[in-house]
Amino acid sequence: MKKLTGEVLIIDAPDRSADLYYGCRFWAPDPLVFLMQRKTRHLVVSKLEYGRAEKHARVQQEVGKLNVWTPDMLGVGSKKRVQLSEWALALIRHLEVQQIIVPPTFPHGIADRLRRSNVHIKICKGSLFPERETKTKDELSKITESQKAATEAMKAAINLIRKSRVSPAGFLMLTKNQRLHSEHVQRAIQDVLLDRRTLCKDVIVAGGLQATDPHERGHGPLRACETIAIDIFPQHLDHGYWGDLTRTVFKGTAPTPVKRMYAAVKAAHDAAIRAVGPRVACSTIHERAAETLRKRNFKTEIRGDTAVGFIHSTGHGLGLEIHESPSLGGRPGRLRAGNVITIEPGLYYPELGGIRVEDTVVVTSKGARTLVACPHVFEV
Amino acid sequence: MKKLTGEVLIIDAPDRSADLYYGCRFWAPDPLVFLMQRKTRHLVVSKLEYGRAEKHARVQQEVGKLNVWTPDMLGVGSKKRVQLSEWALALIRHLEVQQIIVPPTFPHGIADRLRRSNVHIKICKGSLFPERETKTKDELSKITESQKAATEAMKAAINLIRKSRVSPAGFLMLTKNQRLHSEHVQRAIQDVLLDRRTLCKDVIVAGGLQATDPHERGHGPLRACETIAIDIFPQHLDHGYWGDLTRTVFKGTAPTPVKRMYAAVKAAHDAAIRAVGPRVACSTIHERAAETLRKRNFKTEIRGDTAVGFIHSTGHGLGLEIHESPSLGGRPGRLRAGNVITIEPGLYYPELGGIRVEDTVVVTSKGARTLVACPHVFEV
Repeated sequence: MKKLTGEVLIIDAPDRSADLYYGCRFWAPDPLVFLMQRKTRHLVVSKLEYGRAEKHARVQQEVGKLNVWTPDMLGVGSKKRVQLSEWALALIRHLEVQQIIVPPTFPHGIADRLRRSNVHIKICKGSLFPERETKTKDELSKITESQKAATEAMKAAINLIRKSRVSPAGFLMLTKNQRLHSEHVQRAIQDVLLDRRTLCKDVIVAGGLQATDPHERGHGPLRACETIAIDIFPQHLDHGYWGDLTRTVFKGTAPTPVKRMYAAVKAAHDAAIRAVGPRVACSTIHERAAETLRKRNFKTEIRGDTAVGFIHSTGHGLGLEIHESPSLGGRPGRLRAGNVITIEPGLYYPELGGIRVEDTVVVTSKGARTLVACPHVFEV
Repeated sequence: MKKLTGEVLIIDAPDRSADLYYGCRFWAPDPLVFLMQRKTRHLVVSKLEYGRAEKHARVQQEVGKLNVWTPDMLGVGSKKRVQLSEWALALIRHLEVQQIIVPPTFPHGIADRLRRSNVHIKICKGSLFPERETKTKDELSKITESQKAATEAMKAAINLIRKSRVSPAGFLMLTKNQRLHSEHVQRAIQDVLLDRRTLCKDVIVAGGLQATDPHERGHGPLRACETIAIDIFPQHLDHGYWGDLTRTVFKGTAPTPVKRMYAAVKAAHDAAIRAVGPRVACSTIHERAAETLRKRNFKTEIRGDTAVGFIHSTGHGLGLEIHESPSLGGRPGRLRAGNVITIEPGLYYPELGGIRVEDTVVVTSKGARTLVACPHVFEV
């Protein structure tokens, strides 16, 4: 069967490539070769994986044909059996494929080897699976499962901070004699997540200056009278779909400038969510959040080395990846019903702290629906 | 060690590329550009990461110069600011680099873009950082930390199985009315790991037929009178170094064929460890394990779809990656003092179950030293 566009080839570990996992739904820790023709999908796996892959393929026949090969079956000699490029080449020759399409992340070393064997390679400009952006009912329920785990973990984290006492020196206390550290709260979060078969390697509980860096996980003692950002993004151990949720809390009564900052972020969050709907430009959502913050006199600028203010995009798609399309920043693109996106404006100033508020929503025909409700609290 | 001519370029997330993290020691979840000249290393990061990267670079000056750039500083126009290829191109032009060396996994899309701009690209044949294979004292202590976590978690897991009662139907019981599932044991393992700031996403607790697939994590009720493979490979949350440890246990008294199988695997494990030493061929270690199993009449063969017997290699290096060089299978290469390797022979037969025994050792001038001792038990 001849195709104008060619066949899609991915070489990666399903554990690392969401496209590959989406394409074959076969989980494995090691790299394998995946080739997709119009009607049939092919997997080349090591002998070690063959039994499990074959079993998987039999279940998969309902959604479309999946053929499983080993290098042996394709006649790859024993000396070349460890080279994935040889697996791919053998499959390409066996299927008499003329041209392949690869993702931009395709390993350059393997592309080079295939080209030297006269395989014509085209790099895919857009997404290999644009349909990944609009979630099916089944995918929605999986993301919701992870989002529920994040929500329960958030409640536990905030409770731990709420019920902590404040020492005369202003430290939050876990017990009478033990300070409450970021690590204690992270541990409590992990506990709830694991009970719901999810995991978040880099869970953020960052107070004070630490909270002004959105990628700082946070460590050491937490204090009263500073913002504490809690960002929980768990992946489900069984199906791999992610959730994402952020709250920022403040132990005690916040001074007016910090209160105003929280109110501005929450207003930006609400304005962005109100703007969500099918066919809305992604940049409009971002602009709506940015505008809300600007109008309340929170400036985004470079101070010395460091960017302050609203220094990241408003959100991102999520599903099998924690960051996937669509992106809600300056890039082109429009929302579609079925997109699952985060809405997470934030403000970061060394003198005030970091505040970010995030919910995960699904784009519906009417607007946005928050996947799992989680109370909005600030002073605890 | 072969000298690399030209400058090394890596574009990836430090979270995904151990080479990149090894080269700059800067942790970030998002992709960045890393270029290594003979005396100076360069990082291009987004504005969001600049402050943190700069702070890191100041600490790093002791080990070697690390310059941090943003796309802005390199004159990348705002329209191209999201494209990593433009970051790399701007840096290459700024430094007047003539030829770059990239890893085989370098993204093909970016390589293509650079070539079209007349950058000469060479693909590195071997390792970009061959020195990663021999661990420094500091690295050894970090791996030991993760290995200790695995060892404590293993004790907890085996204890849980040991103290479980057996129901009349042969199920292990967590309480009087609740069966013990793989998931309960995995959860207990995670608990101990998290207390030691380590995490193992795919921890294996697999019984019966599940244990005959080395990549099956295991799920559902555990039974008496079947082998239960427990494989714990935690990564440290702070420094990223891995540990790796496997034990196989059997609740009750094992029948003679299963006892013989365990004894054979343990003997193969011991023989392989005895063979370890500097300058020993990696394939010799593997052959020593394979030979021990063959001599005890445990055959490796294909039965129908499935490979049975000793169906994987004897071990692998570990450090910043769970699987890294050297590999102890059929591939060429020799051990060197300072290598950290796993020794993990196993046997897998549908009628007997799966048995794998694994320790992590460091290659010393005299032979092998087990990093952390963990009792060898089988019947519990």
